[in-house]
Amino acid sequence: IETRMPKVGTTIFTVMSALATERGAVNLGQGFPDFDCDPLLVDAVADAMRKGLNQYPPMAGIPALRQVVADKIAAIYGARYDWNDEITITAGATQAIFTALLAIVRPGDEVIVLEPVYDSYIPNIELIGGKVVAVPMSTEYRVPWDRVRAAVTPRTRAIMVNSPHNPSGMILRDADMRELESIAVDANLFVISDEVYEHMVYDGEPHQSACRYPALASRSFVISSFGKTFHVTGWKVAYCAAPAPLTAEFRKVHQFNVFTVSTPVQHGLAEYMREPSRYLQLPAFYQRKRDLFREGLANTRFRLLPSEGTFFQLVDYSAISDMPEADFAKWLTTEIGVAAIPLSAFYEQPVENGVVRFCFAKKEETLKLALERLSAL
Amino acid sequence: IETRMPKVGTTIFTVMSALATERGAVNLGQGFPDFDCDPLLVDAVADAMRKGLNQYPPMAGIPALRQVVADKIAAIYGARYDWNDEITITAGATQAIFTALLAIVRPGDEVIVLEPVYDSYIPNIELIGGKVVAVPMSTEYRVPWDRVRAAVTPRTRAIMVNSPHNPSGMILRDADMRELESIAVDANLFVISDEVYEHMVYDGEPHQSACRYPALASRSFVISSFGKTFHVTGWKVAYCAAPAPLTAEFRKVHQFNVFTVSTPVQHGLAEYMREPSRYLQLPAFYQRKRDLFREGLANTRFRLLPSEGTFFQLVDYSAISDMPEADFAKWLTTEIGVAAIPLSAFYEQPVENGVVRFCFAKKEETLKLALERLSAL
Ligand SMILES: CSCCC(=O)C(=O)O
Ligand SMILES: CSCCC(=O)C(=O)O
Repeated sequence: IETRMPKVGTTIFTVMSALATERGAVNLGQGFPDFDCDPLLVDAVADAMRKGLNQYPPMAGIPALRQVVADKIAAIYGARYDWNDEITITAGATQAIFTALLAIVRPGDEVIVLEPVYDSYIPNIELIGGKVVAVPMSTEYRVPWDRVRAAVTPRTRAIMVNSPHNPSGMILRDADMRELESIAVDANLFVISDEVYEHMVYDGEPHQSACRYPALASRSFVISSFGKTFHVTGWKVAYCAAPAPLTAEFRKVHQFNVFTVSTPVQHGLAEYMREPSRYLQLPAFYQRKRDLFREGLANTRFRLLPSEGTFFQLVDYSAISDMPEADFAKWLTTEIGVAAIPLSAFYEQPVENGVVRFCFAKKEETLKLALERLSAL
Repeated sequence: IETRMPKVGTTIFTVMSALATERGAVNLGQGFPDFDCDPLLVDAVADAMRKGLNQYPPMAGIPALRQVVADKIAAIYGARYDWNDEITITAGATQAIFTALLAIVRPGDEVIVLEPVYDSYIPNIELIGGKVVAVPMSTEYRVPWDRVRAAVTPRTRAIMVNSPHNPSGMILRDADMRELESIAVDANLFVISDEVYEHMVYDGEPHQSACRYPALASRSFVISSFGKTFHVTGWKVAYCAAPAPLTAEFRKVHQFNVFTVSTPVQHGLAEYMREPSRYLQLPAFYQRKRDLFREGLANTRFRLLPSEGTFFQLVDYSAISDMPEADFAKWLTTEIGVAAIPLSAFYEQPVENGVVRFCFAKKEETLKLALERLSAL
């Protein structure tokens, strides 16, 4: 069949998770927790279902959840979004990102992405007839803003950023955000800011949300994920915050894509999020995991790269093997019993850095078992 | 902002539901039940959450749910789909329809729709650069297959059908399906068969699913909705059954749109659907509602049109008022206290038939209250 997406295969996350299950490997590949969410969150959703909150919610999301999101953003970042006109609840962050792109990218428009790049961005752009302009990050996974600026053309419509950054764990700093803002304003670009790991930033650093910078916020779709935040990646629920005119365009697409998102899950989240400590405690919670994992790898031949945020740790394995990344990840899964994701999966034209990604959003015992196996190398 | 969807407004369902709530009207507009689902279904989902089934499911859906869907289709329609390669769980039927279109429609391709047409189809086609070819149904809401055949051109890529039909309540019969099959085969078209009301067909008629006709099934995306079937429209979960090569293309888009669908809801549904009576009893259940509603309107000046399936009843109000449909629906909501949907909302170029749509998927007491108010007219 001649279709729009000839070259798309199965995502690397699906492939590696399947291999991990098949081989009984510790799965540090796909990014999801192996511990459970707070039982109070489950109770809140179950209560909503039992109260009969099971029919269509408002298209943009239930007011209570949008309000608590707007309040959270105001409290943490000092940015004001009108809950009614500027917050939309989505069926996961992937859907939010795709919907934002569909809303603004016209056929032939160019969209700048930074490589390594999350695996849905490029297929999303291509699927809707946009043109991908990939700018490589530096070897330290910093953004070369001069190169980004040089990549702008009259056809550039948008730039996609992701901080904390999957897969590198890099976070954008204040100086980065000012560069981004200046480029976006000068070239009149939209910005899609994927901030699904906003509550996983370590060492006391602040998360520099795009919403903190008024001129940037005015042209940005800021996307975050309840699934990532509350350890329920399988619930598929996220939100997009954007100024009213952008949100209006976003919703035109949203209402004819998924239309709405689970009513009881929205009610459960709204109830649960009334207590801010439930997300404010996350940086400390995940930092302990990161530190445990890094300490465990410190005496191996893996070279640790920085992990400033996300739940990912990149490691350079070149002292251990000269296999290409995809082969090494597979070998690690099948022979050593620890699944990882090859960094090359995050490039349009695979490059080889001798680096794989581990996910440390796991129970202590899982991390310890993985460390035991990895220490043999 | 110059975007892809300049003319899209808020869906009529959202508008009328909001007006109904504001005015305290009985809401027979938007199609959703006002009664609750079986508590056993809620228990099954709550159990799954409590068991910790809260992380990413497989991209295409959990095996148990896909198996039970394949079994259901085989039992009812005698059609065989491979659960692994041919069934995909989606975030509602709207998402399934949009995803199927995105998978197959290339810019400039023509897609045939039948008017009156469900409100997402036309924006879906336009959003992705397809060209809408609308063929009007007859005044009895039958499909004029000769006109459909005449509308085919070398650029025609697909035809969208919907049986039982929203808003008219018409069902396609065996003769219709043979015509559809012959046109689709002759012109080498894909078929998107929206069968979300498959379990709401009355008077002992069978539902003629596209999957029953092998040459048709081989080129069809057959879409149905757990939300509609189990009185949980707010859960946003549906499926698409299609031959493996079509499913492969469908999933290329699906995995980068919503990626996956709620894990605990999928587990709950799989458990619940193991008892087939839970969907086999639906025609009788809804037929009682339809009959109650029709009997109540029989002695009014509304003229009842046939309702062979769905949970909708069209009525001709021309003996009562000569208002345009949108005005009449609004007046009915605000002055009489019963919300309806104007039929004109289902046309690209609004036509006036003096007809509105009522939803009878309501508790007996709701229907009685609405009938009391409508009987005054
Ligand atoms: C959507 S599945 C992949 C999860 C994830 O974000 C990752 O592993 O990078
Ligand atoms: C998706 S909201 C509309 C529900 C529906 O199918 C209808 O009312 O026609």
